[in-house]
Amino acid sequence: MLPLKRDVKRTISKIKSLRIQGARNVAKAAMQALGGAARSSNAKTPEALLRELTLTANALAASRPTEPMMRNALEEALRRFFAEVGGRKPRTLEEARRAVLDEISSFEKKAAHSHALIAEFGAKEIPQGATVLTHCHSSTVTAILRRAHRQGKKIKVICTETRPLYQGRITARELSSAGIPTTLIVDSAIKSVMHDVDLVLVGADAITSSGELVNKIGTATLAFVAYEEELNFYSAAELFKFDPLTLWGKIEPIEQRDAREVADPRSLPGVRILNPAFDLTPAKHITAYITEHGVVAPQSVYALASNYFELVDKNGKR
Amino acid sequence: MLPLKRDVKRTISKIKSLRIQGARNVAKAAMQALGGAARSSNAKTPEALLRELTLTANALAASRPTEPMMRNALEEALRRFFAEVGGRKPRTLEEARRAVLDEISSFEKKAAHSHALIAEFGAKEIPQGATVLTHCHSSTVTAILRRAHRQGKKIKVICTETRPLYQGRITARELSSAGIPTTLIVDSAIKSVMHDVDLVLVGADAITSSGELVNKIGTATLAFVAYEEELNFYSAAELFKFDPLTLWGKIEPIEQRDAREVADPRSLPGVRILNPAFDLTPAKHITAYITEHGVVAPQSVYALASNYFELVDKNGKR
Amino acid sequence: MLPLKRDVKRTISKIKSLRIQGARNVAKAAMQALGGAARSSNAKTPEALLRELTLTANALAASRPTEPMMRNALEEALRRFFAEVGGRKPRTLEEARRAVLDEISSFEKKAAHSHALIAEFGAKEIPQGATVLTHCHSSTVTAILRRAHRQGKKIKVICTETRPLYQGRITARELSSAGIPTTLIVDSAIKSVMHDVDLVLVGADAITSSGELVNKIGTATLAFVAYEEELNFYSAAELFKFDPLTLWGKIEPIEQRDAREVADPRSLPGVRILNPAFDLTPAKHITAYITEHGVVAPQSVYALASNYFELVDKNGKR
Amino acid sequence: MLPLKRDVKRTISKIKSLRIQGARNVAKAAMQALGGAARSSNAKTPEALLRELTLTANALAASRPTEPMMRNALEEALRRFFAEVGGRKPRTLEEARRAVLDEISSFEKKAAHSHALIAEFGAKEIPQGATVLTHCHSSTVTAILRRAHRQGKKIKVICTETRPLYQGRITARELSSAGIPTTLIVDSAIKSVMHDVDLVLVGADAITSSGELVNKIGTATLAFVAYEEELNFYSAAELFKFDPLTLWGKIEPIEQRDAREVADPRSLPGVRILNPAFDLTPAKHITAYITEHGVVAPQSVYALASNYFELVDKNGKR
Amino acid sequence: MLPLKRDVKRTISKIKSLRIQGARNVAKAAMQALGGAARSSNAKTPEALLRELTLTANALAASRPTEPMMRNALEEALRRFFAEVGGRKPRTLEEARRAVLDEISSFEKKAAHSHALIAEFGAKEIPQGATVLTHCHSSTVTAILRRAHRQGKKIKVICTETRPLYQGRITARELSSAGIPTTLIVDSAIKSVMHDVDLVLVGADAITSSGELVNKIGTATLAFVAYEEELNFYSAAELFKFDPLTLWGKIEPIEQRDAREVADPRSLPGVRILNPAFDLTPAKHITAYITEHGVVAPQSVYALASNYFELVDKNGKR
Amino acid sequence: MLPLKRDVKRTISKIKSLRIQGARNVAKAAMQALGGAARSSNAKTPEALLRELTLTANALAASRPTEPMMRNALEEALRRFFAEVGGRKPRTLEEARRAVLDEISSFEKKAAHSHALIAEFGAKEIPQGATVLTHCHSSTVTAILRRAHRQGKKIKVICTETRPLYQGRITARELSSAGIPTTLIVDSAIKSVMHDVDLVLVGADAITSSGELVNKIGTATLAFVAYEEELNFYSAAELFKFDPLTLWGKIEPIEQRDAREVADPRSLPGVRILNPAFDLTPAKHITAYITEHGVVAPQSVYALASNYFELVDKNGKR
Repeated sequence: MLPLKRDVKRTISKIKSLRIQGARNVAKAAMQALGGAARSSNAKTPEALLRELTLTANALAASRPTEPMMRNALEEALRRFFAEVGGRKPRTLEEARRAVLDEISSFEKKAAHSHALIAEFGAKEIPQGATVLTHCHSSTVTAILRRAHRQGKKIKVICTETRPLYQGRITARELSSAGIPTTLIVDSAIKSVMHDVDLVLVGADAITSSGELVNKIGTATLAFVAYEEELNFYSAAELFKFDPLTLWGKIEPIEQRDAREVADPRSLPGVRILNPAFDLTPAKHITAYITEHGVVAPQSVYALASNYFELVDKNGKR
Repeated sequence: MLPLKRDVKRTISKIKSLRIQGARNVAKAAMQALGGAARSSNAKTPEALLRELTLTANALAASRPTEPMMRNALEEALRRFFAEVGGRKPRTLEEARRAVLDEISSFEKKAAHSHALIAEFGAKEIPQGATVLTHCHSSTVTAILRRAHRQGKKIKVICTETRPLYQGRITARELSSAGIPTTLIVDSAIKSVMHDVDLVLVGADAITSSGELVNKIGTATLAFVAYEEELNFYSAAELFKFDPLTLWGKIEPIEQRDAREVADPRSLPGVRILNPAFDLTPAKHITAYITEHGVVAPQSVYALASNYFELVDKNGKR
Repeated sequence: MLPLKRDVKRTISKIKSLRIQGARNVAKAAMQALGGAARSSNAKTPEALLRELTLTANALAASRPTEPMMRNALEEALRRFFAEVGGRKPRTLEEARRAVLDEISSFEKKAAHSHALIAEFGAKEIPQGATVLTHCHSSTVTAILRRAHRQGKKIKVICTETRPLYQGRITARELSSAGIPTTLIVDSAIKSVMHDVDLVLVGADAITSSGELVNKIGTATLAFVAYEEELNFYSAAELFKFDPLTLWGKIEPIEQRDAREVADPRSLPGVRILNPAFDLTPAKHITAYITEHGVVAPQSVYALASNYFELVDKNGKR
Repeated sequence: MLPLKRDVKRTISKIKSLRIQGARNVAKAAMQALGGAARSSNAKTPEALLRELTLTANALAASRPTEPMMRNALEEALRRFFAEVGGRKPRTLEEARRAVLDEISSFEKKAAHSHALIAEFGAKEIPQGATVLTHCHSSTVTAILRRAHRQGKKIKVICTETRPLYQGRITARELSSAGIPTTLIVDSAIKSVMHDVDLVLVGADAITSSGELVNKIGTATLAFVAYEEELNFYSAAELFKFDPLTLWGKIEPIEQRDAREVADPRSLPGVRILNPAFDLTPAKHITAYITEHGVVAPQSVYALASNYFELVDKNGKR
Repeated sequence: MLPLKRDVKRTISKIKSLRIQGARNVAKAAMQALGGAARSSNAKTPEALLRELTLTANALAASRPTEPMMRNALEEALRRFFAEVGGRKPRTLEEARRAVLDEISSFEKKAAHSHALIAEFGAKEIPQGATVLTHCHSSTVTAILRRAHRQGKKIKVICTETRPLYQGRITARELSSAGIPTTLIVDSAIKSVMHDVDLVLVGADAITSSGELVNKIGTATLAFVAYEEELNFYSAAELFKFDPLTLWGKIEPIEQRDAREVADPRSLPGVRILNPAFDLTPAKHITAYITEHGVVAPQSVYALASNYFELVDKNGKR
Repeated sequence: MLPLKRDVKRTISKIKSLRIQGARNVAKAAMQALGGAARSSNAKTPEALLRELTLTANALAASRPTEPMMRNALEEALRRFFAEVGGRKPRTLEEARRAVLDEISSFEKKAAHSHALIAEFGAKEIPQGATVLTHCHSSTVTAILRRAHRQGKKIKVICTETRPLYQGRITARELSSAGIPTTLIVDSAIKSVMHDVDLVLVGADAITSSGELVNKIGTATLAFVAYEEELNFYSAAELFKFDPLTLWGKIEPIEQRDAREVADPRSLPGVRILNPAFDLTPAKHITAYITEHGVVAPQSVYALASNYFELVDKNGKR
């Protein structure tokens, strides 16, 4: 088996240690590492190059199994060259290399374009003068909010602090410095402020085949309270966040992160500390996903995604 | 107007600065300060003594307006000596002093007895092998849990950390050292663990005339989630937590505490930090209050309380 | 059988034709007619007087069977003189007449006092800056709102027009001329405005023994929507609105009023027009009743009422 | 220790083996056995008689711990003779014997009167032409339905078969032979027929201090479905069904009955068969209890019961 | 810029003043005006004709921005001739004119066919003997109801009067004269009659990309009450009511109509009158849309619509 | 008209009398009968053969109108040979016969493959250590549960007995003998055990175009309780269970089965016994369908099914 390039290993290490964060950043870094591997490969035939890059992509994808966007991007970059999924076999080594690099560069452009479209569509969903509640930090969400603000909509934002890592403070700082009146609360104060809220808007880590949202711990409670109080709850997400693996059964259990993020275990002898990274919001609690292809009902994300990018059926047919 | 005794002033200062905490502790300290004032008073007539002690009681009660237990205790201690509320006028100075001191000493005994009864009744509500979710720290709640544990019920407890002041860690430490398997989670993980929970049990800061619970921020969300998932939600509370003032309209707004408990405002320029101390859980989300007079529906607390202690009708009749 | 006095007949006719409206006005008019009958009676013995007044009271009560306040008032005025309900038999004719007139005059004073107390307690329930949704016209409700306004609370009010008789316009006119910013909507727009509403406040025609509210058609929907959106829903009602007959089963069906109030039947040949006057709001959708004895859970109104006025048990025991 | 009389033993045995069934029948049989023991006692002093009867009552009460009506009746019969609960000490043996027998005879009269009143009040709750869904067999429920039928209300009834013992067939047979149009369904068809149902009416095994209903397995689901579809759900129950022990925590776990009632375990090797006799319906799913003291909110049953019969406080005070 | 034809201007004026009403009528009138413009055009080239007709279509579409059916129809009529959306460029002036006129005539046939299919599919959804509640006036709804009636289904209909313009009276008159037993109620009586209702059926002004229904004010409350009482709620709507603009964010705010429709503002000095024309019913409260392509879940309307007519992706790809 | 072959008649008779049960078994038997008819046909031309087989297929389909799987399979087997639905006309008799037999053999393979895939995908949805509640008997459900068990997931299963025919006992026996800890309960005990349940899993008789599930009576209540307690509810179903007829309105009413399955009518004189075979679970109460094409939201089954097999539009176009 071929050894991985040093740059690829470095990217893997950064993703594992969370030095690279955010679904889009992780996908971008993985794609760049794949591009580097394509450029510096010593393979002699197109087949050898694709084999080598497949190994590289698999290693990158394994660095964070809960990131469908990275996985989807790496798969898209390679699979159109595999005859068995209906792809076109490249004839020369250079054609193969060129094709992969084109895909990677096209991914970056599409990602930037998607980001801009979601900001545009999302801003339209926010009424004049609305108070928006958000959770954790998502650059897609802050892009929507800043855009709505620049459109003169006079919005206000309430951010939860988002324990254990306080990413809500990043959101609060970013929005406040953009001139948006911003309030910070502890996570457990959501019900107390909910009556002043007009809509809830969060990002997404992944979307399942039945339309559920995988996102930062606390999202499910937020969606539930919003649902019961008849408020709209949106998740802003590129369709690439759709996780095709969920079609075949949910295989990734919710990641448990280090207890020390919550409290110093030595100060709590005998106490077990649970630190789940995400929770699962059912489709029925979600008004719509704001995607680059429009504002869509959660139950139709799978049908929509299957129109826009290829989902290889493990079982050999689509 | 008479100056307050130095000891009374010291108690007031400790209550204000939270050096004395917990409804029962605060009530006890206030009653002891009143007792000290009774003992050291230089009043010459029973009327003068009662006037002096009324001033003292009012000053103590004002040190934390959101503590009905202290207020109720101080009122009970004095009002039976006022003819206008149907009391019996003491004939001599010593009789008046003695009567007040008896009331104070009786309060302490009754408070201890109530505590024991609630622990007893509460433990019976906890089924064999149950997993109990609790929030914040309440010595009544931990007494119930420890008692159920000593009865061999093999319970497990999940504690929220309870931002901003992390009182949940105190609960976790106390229960774990009592030998109860204890888990700590961040506040926003409640929905993720709820399906493993058999019942929710919290304390109480106050109970209103329509049966609502005033308790630590986050309680309302917890009760709401439990209600929707058809789990029992109990609050353990002495009837003295019933706040008669709520009968005449809720006059105390939810206290906003110091923003610095949540985050350093200098690190979040322009961001408004809201830090509400309590929230209000509606009666319909509460299965029952566990009181020293039994396990009762929230809607009947007012009727029950009116049987057990005197509620002076501001309007001159009962 | 004795014929009714002409004044009594006139009052009955005015009540039947709705020239006298509003629970309190109707009760007052009936009590005054009873007083007139007492004053002008030619009875020769106390027994004869009471027999005569009982007939008068029954005739008045029958003029609108859905008015428990009138019925309760008339019963209170007489029954303490009947030995069989534990009353004290008056010894002379003049003593009997005097006693009845005293009761009537005391009723008016108590009614005025209750009205003032409800306005006071109700105003305290309304938060600073709140937007209140109301339905139909109730002088108790407008008294609460005007009081909250005079306290400087900067409230806003939304009134439904309240088909078929548009009583909401009366409310809107009254509040607007009191300086309160007031908005009028059609009844079916309640859900559209609900998210801007902080609490709902209505009056009451009657309260049943299980805490249900009988009130103007549309109230049940309003309470239901408020309940599901987690808003407080209050009914302002004197305890005299409690209908003891409901203890023995709900005997008065909802009154169907004249179809012509809804539309001209000649323009709708063959169409059946239903015009129910009231609907029934279940206790679970009501946060609390605002009464002259405080703000109480709907489920405890019966217990409370039984403390404050005598409920004669038809079956011979209490 | 004194041996139990043979008649008492026979009654205990019949209760244990279910040859005597139904809360009222069980209570009646126990009271008759107590009466027999009073009559045939060889005690020489009033104190000895009471001691003997207390032992007898305890043994009877223990024959079915989930029957509060029997327990309440036996307690009432004796405890007014015990000085420590404020009773009056009987002076002679005959006075003691007489007093107990009077209590027993008065219990039977009161029970019959309560039964008639509940039938009366309950029939008034049933609207003209209503379709009523019921579960299991309760003679109180069938008395209400037959009375409504005789009043010419043209009701229809749907009975569940009520597995495992098919008591619903008894109900169906009884109502059908009374001329009421009756339909039988399997238990799991309740949701399919619910839209044709106007109200649900069941009996009661016990009522807890927070207003919950203990009744035949399946009742909780029925109440839940009725609640969500906004239908009224009533339980017809004498106040004697109120279980004062629940005030001190629910101490009787739900009885598990013989697996063979469900299926022949030999035909299902290795399969565990659960056969819970009752379930617990929360107060919020119950519209009202129809009692001999009127139609009351479940949350106020405790307050009401405490007005009508004495609840000895285990802790020495009321 | 070319001036608009006089006939086009007249149609625009009629649409604006509501002299032409109902989505289908408005679309038909706009298409006829477009046809007239095509016939009478003086354009010399196919390109000039298409440019002229595009201007005409835009002007017509702008006459009521909340009518997606008209907008969709006009777009369909023209866009297949634009190369940039994959259309086929017409070669001659006459070919272009012919093609547009063919599209317009085909639209009318398809609309009539859709209407018949919806009536057919809708009638099958209505069970024998059902009571149907409807709101406002929709010719599609009355077509379904009349068809079910002619099939001998013995249905009954309840119509709300539908304030402020009382369109419910039109519905009542139309159904009653078709021989259907019809009842009229005020809008706020919906909850009172709901228990006698078997299903709710309304029309549609527009459908959004996440499946929400835009319809006459009051629809959202009706759907909400039906949802909570577990009744089916259908909207009958051609797929052309789907509004593709909502994919890119909801851009049309709910239209506020003239206050004078509600009440004479001069009689209500200082009162603000809100008169929203529509409200928004969330997808979760809608059982299904009855369309010409079958009875479909609201969440899949977007996926379905994208199969049946072309939605030009603003962003250049589908 | 041609007479049916004896084998076909025998199959029809077995299906009607329930000797062949289960959607897959019924479909398989019908396909085999069709194959036999193809093999033994005396037709002389391909047209004659197809005509003959169409008659045979219609007769088989009519033997149980509530089985969409059989209907879909028979339609698939023939319709690709009909020119009018875009099929290819076979040129020779033998080509026609061969083609039909190939379709039949391919159906069996695909059915077996689908079964295996659903077991695979379904097993992944079941968490480690989960307690699963199931209803009735479905070989697809037991395949999923056995597979999860073999994967070492340490699951437990609770089976309802499923009145009136006790199919739950079959499920219990099958799972217990596979080594899975299994519990049997009466149908009405579902709410009592629900809190120990982690997910609910049932089979399917049919799926409608708006995503509703037709399944054994009792399923709707189960789904409803699971929904309200926030538990996942899955139905395992081949896409062939999708019933395209529902697109055009629900035409098959719920089958009423023989009253004698419930009770002996002679023992219940005058009692009407209702025995509905199925009930209808709305899409909103279903988390997802587990299909051979993945785990999908109920609202998108129609869109998905329309991708995987041809739905002939009755109205002549797709």
